[in-house]
Amino acid sequence: MPLSHGRLDGDNLVCRYHGLAFDGAGRCTRMPSQEKLNASACVRAYPVTEKHRLVWLWPGDAAAADPALVPDWHWAEDPHWEGDGETLLLKCDYRLVIDNLMDLTHETFVHATSIGHSAIAHTPAKTTHDEKSVTIERWMPDIDAPPFWRTQLGKPGNVDRWQIIRFEPPCTIVLDVGVAPVGTGALHGDRSQGVNNRVLNTITPSTRNTCMYFWSLVRNHHLGDQSLTGRLKQANARIFEEDRAVLEAQQQAIDARPGQELRNLNIDAGSLWARRLIERMT
Amino acid sequence: MPLSHGRLDGDNLVCRYHGLAFDGAGRCTRMPSQEKLNASACVRAYPVTEKHRLVWLWPGDAAAADPALVPDWHWAEDPHWEGDGETLLLKCDYRLVIDNLMDLTHETFVHATSIGHSAIAHTPAKTTHDEKSVTIERWMPDIDAPPFWRTQLGKPGNVDRWQIIRFEPPCTIVLDVGVAPVGTGALHGDRSQGVNNRVLNTITPSTRNTCMYFWSLVRNHHLGDQSLTGRLKQANARIFEEDRAVLEAQQQAIDARPGQELRNLNIDAGSLWARRLIERMT
Amino acid sequence: MPLSHGRLDGDNLVCRYHGLAFDGAGRCTRMPSQEKLNASACVRAYPVTEKHRLVWLWPGDAAAADPALVPDWHWAEDPHWEGDGETLLLKCDYRLVIDNLMDLTHETFVHATSIGHSAIAHTPAKTTHDEKSVTIERWMPDIDAPPFWRTQLGKPGNVDRWQIIRFEPPCTIVLDVGVAPVGTGALHGDRSQGVNNRVLNTITPSTRNTCMYFWSLVRNHHLGDQSLTGRLKQANARIFEEDRAVLEAQQQAIDARPGQELRNLNIDAGSLWARRLIERMT
Repeated sequence: MPLSHGRLDGDNLVCRYHGLAFDGAGRCTRMPSQEKLNASACVRAYPVTEKHRLVWLWPGDAAAADPALVPDWHWAEDPHWEGDGETLLLKCDYRLVIDNLMDLTHETFVHATSIGHSAIAHTPAKTTHDEKSVTIERWMPDIDAPPFWRTQLGKPGNVDRWQIIRFEPPCTIVLDVGVAPVGTGALHGDRSQGVNNRVLNTITPSTRNTCMYFWSLVRNHHLGDQSLTGRLKQANARIFEEDRAVLEAQQQAIDARPGQELRNLNIDAGSLWARRLIERMT
Repeated sequence: MPLSHGRLDGDNLVCRYHGLAFDGAGRCTRMPSQEKLNASACVRAYPVTEKHRLVWLWPGDAAAADPALVPDWHWAEDPHWEGDGETLLLKCDYRLVIDNLMDLTHETFVHATSIGHSAIAHTPAKTTHDEKSVTIERWMPDIDAPPFWRTQLGKPGNVDRWQIIRFEPPCTIVLDVGVAPVGTGALHGDRSQGVNNRVLNTITPSTRNTCMYFWSLVRNHHLGDQSLTGRLKQANARIFEEDRAVLEAQQQAIDARPGQELRNLNIDAGSLWARRLIERMT
Repeated sequence: MPLSHGRLDGDNLVCRYHGLAFDGAGRCTRMPSQEKLNASACVRAYPVTEKHRLVWLWPGDAAAADPALVPDWHWAEDPHWEGDGETLLLKCDYRLVIDNLMDLTHETFVHATSIGHSAIAHTPAKTTHDEKSVTIERWMPDIDAPPFWRTQLGKPGNVDRWQIIRFEPPCTIVLDVGVAPVGTGALHGDRSQGVNNRVLNTITPSTRNTCMYFWSLVRNHHLGDQSLTGRLKQANARIFEEDRAVLEAQQQAIDARPGQELRNLNIDAGSLWARRLIERMT
């Protein structure tokens, strides 16, 4: 019986089937109906650290675990940002989710009714990288705002829109996305007239072709408006369900042709760099 | 992402994920966010021809594609015939559907409440074949009409009933089925007092054990009666759901015993010839 | 088409697809549309015996079949016992169900709201075995009765509770379970003041990781009370659904780690002996 079905009794994890209890080091501390504990009944313990409202687990060599390696998700607990999110179980390789987030041209085609805009597909993006991250930046000056952004901005007229994607290996992507009324300075660093979101994403593999996807959408405006938090979460959840359909169809197509190699185009530059940084970690 | 999820933009097929567009020759004609087209991003194009309200695709050597090889489904667009149909996704090898249609004795047992009749199982059928088709003919003189036929005929009394099955490789079967009041000449070629249907069937493999099944039921009487068209389609759809249960259970039994050979009986003569003609094409 | 989808015509089993009929010896007795029977169309017949309201099938060498080997389920037809049961299809190896029933300490953790009690996990059980059976006995004197038993007993106050598990290979387990008011003699053989159930269980493998589970819960009190029969059956069915969740999760975990060996603890003594007796039969 997987221990993940168990329950916590203080700091012990109790198996739901026969009540064996394990402490944080993986040692068995209780074995019902057994006079003395059987020392062999231990489970592997992993170094973990709690940070930015998530529990980060290190599956590799315990000696190499370092809390400083936790990717930056600080917006999840920053008092100047506010929002909500979900955890999804997806039937695809976690790297397909990374590909998805590293190339937002898909918004034009997959999310046409919410955040999509032909400008995204028409505006080239600039990809840069260093040893620890990949960044993709796209600025779309003077365009119409799609519904998702019009609602948040609450003002008429064209906007300058930005999408700055930052990947940190092995599996975290933060989207810095927003719009500001056209010509109010966003292009030159002054976003004070606009609205800004961070979409925080972390994806962890469960198996070769399934993964868990943690996301949270936070904003830096209308703080304290719980109703807006709910509506934005719901809107984003709908967008990710559109992605789920794409990602799971893509995985099925990959599984149906096991030998076939993936082809890459220019738009895949960001995702290629992300995969390289992941490979360097393993 | 499978292109089958895409949409048409004029004569171009547009991928639903990143908007790549392909023309009828498989050449990429648009690649969003990319300055020049990457010539390697082409897809395989297949010769197709539109005929009898279906699109017929040739998966083999393009040079050998010949529209004259399209099986006869002309009743689907013949003004003297009228009806409707459906497309089903079945979890079975497409040849099991061919077996099913080539031996209608199963109607007695699978479709007892609609078109089944003990006479079908008791009356031997005559199987003939040439290089391009297999034909199975069964005449049942002076029998009671089951509900499906009684409704269409609209007259009391016994009937002469016929089932003429014609297979054209690789995957088309047309049933010429009908009843006429007993002794009004149907046995000798005069069907004018009876009612006649053609059940048009084409089955194409999707994978080794799934297929798409296209069927249409057309009739040569009560033309223009949309309500009758709807009722007959519904009745036939129910019959095919009974077949689906049989076919998918059969496939599961086959999959559970991978090494086991199929056994054939006399009633399988038609289906054996059909399988031989299919093999000659490959 | 699996013959299990067929129907009985007298003592013949008729295939649902094309109407072939087979007698009890597996010989084909009817072959519609065929002039003479094809002798090769026979199916394997298995020795069976009807006993204790079940049909017992012998899948091994027919010459070795012996009705005397049928495990004891006589309570199912004993007029002093009364009850009802169900047949479940479980997605797990049948031996996981045996493990489950051979160690009832899981009741404390899996069935906490119905039959569970911390005393079960705290009280050691005594395991004995001979060539034909394994028995596990646990007596819990002077404890509180959980809801399932309180309802049956209909009296307040502490109880003496017993669980006597008896396994007969290859796949039958009878639970002799009950409670009596504390100190009324149950510990010394006089159960007359208490209530007693027999949970009759037989589990047969369908495939390597699926099985059919036949159970019946019978009691020796309030005979003729159909409403009580219904309520006890429903209560027990709910308990077995809790087990189903555990068993199927366990099978999934086993399937996900094909090479991994099962570990055994003291509480598995009963189930280890059961597995040994099963292996001796094969």
